[in-house]
Amino acid sequence: MDYPHIARQTSRVLSSYLTYQAVRVVVGQLSQTDPPLAIWLNGFSATGKIQDGEQYLRELLQERQELALRVMTLREHLAETILDVLPEMVRADIQQANIQQRKHHLERITQVASSEAATWPELES
Amino acid sequence: MDYPHIARQTSRVLSSYLTYQAVRVVVGQLSQTDPPLAIWLNGFSATGKIQDGEQYLRELLQERQELALRVMTLREHLAETILDVLPEMVRADIQQANIQQRKHHLERITQVASSEAATWPELES
Repeated sequence: MDYPHIARQTSRVLSSYLTYQAVRVVVGQLSQTDPPLAIWLNGFSATGKIQDGEQYLRELLQERQELALRVMTLREHLAETILDVLPEMVRADIQQANIQQRKHHLERITQVASSEAATWPELES
Repeated sequence: MDYPHIARQTSRVLSSYLTYQAVRVVVGQLSQTDPPLAIWLNGFSATGKIQDGEQYLRELLQERQELALRVMTLREHLAETILDVLPEMVRADIQQANIQQRKHHLERITQVASSEAATWPELES
C-alpha cells in the first residue's frame, strides 16, 4: 500500500476543503457587512469550481483581489486552529462508525434469521 | 467563527475520504486476486453514493458483507497510519500555495502595469 501517496492526496483534499470552509466564513461575514458582495461571492463560488481550491483562488484573484486575499488568510488561520484536533477526532469517528455498522448488520442478519426460523413451524405443520 | 463546528464537518469529510481511499485499495488488491470481483466493486462504488461513506457501507454490507468488513478494517488502518502526518502537511501546503498565489498575482498585475506604461510614449507622441 502506498501510504505516502494516499497521505499526499488526502492532504490536497483537505487543503481544498479548508478553502471551501474559508469561503463560507467570508460569505457569512459579508452577509452582515455587505450583502450584495456576499451574494456575488456566493454565486462566484457555487459553480463547482471550488472543488479545485487553487484554480478557484486564481480566478478570484483576477475578479476580486481583496476577497481572494481574505480567503487565503482565513484558510491559513483555519489550518492553524483546527488541524491538530482532527487526527484524534477522525480516528474516534471511524472506530465508532465501524462498531455501529457491525452492530446494525448483526441485528439485521439476526432478524432475518429469526423471521426465517419463525416460518419453520408453518412449513412443518 | 464556529471552530468546533468547522472541525466536526472537516472530520466527517475526512472519514468519508478515507473510506473512499480504502475502497480504492481494496479494488487494487482484488484486481490482482479476483478481477471479476474488482470490476463488481468498482461498478458498485462508481455511482456517487461513496460521497456518503456510512450510507455506502450500509449498502455494501447488504450486498457483499466480506468486502464491506474489509473496507472498514482498512479505513481504520489508514486512519491509524496517515492521520498524524496530515496537520503539518496541510499547513505547509496551504502556506506554500498562498505564497505562490500572491507571487503569481503580483507578477500578473506588474505585467499589466508595465504593458500599460509601455503605451504612454505612443500616447504622448
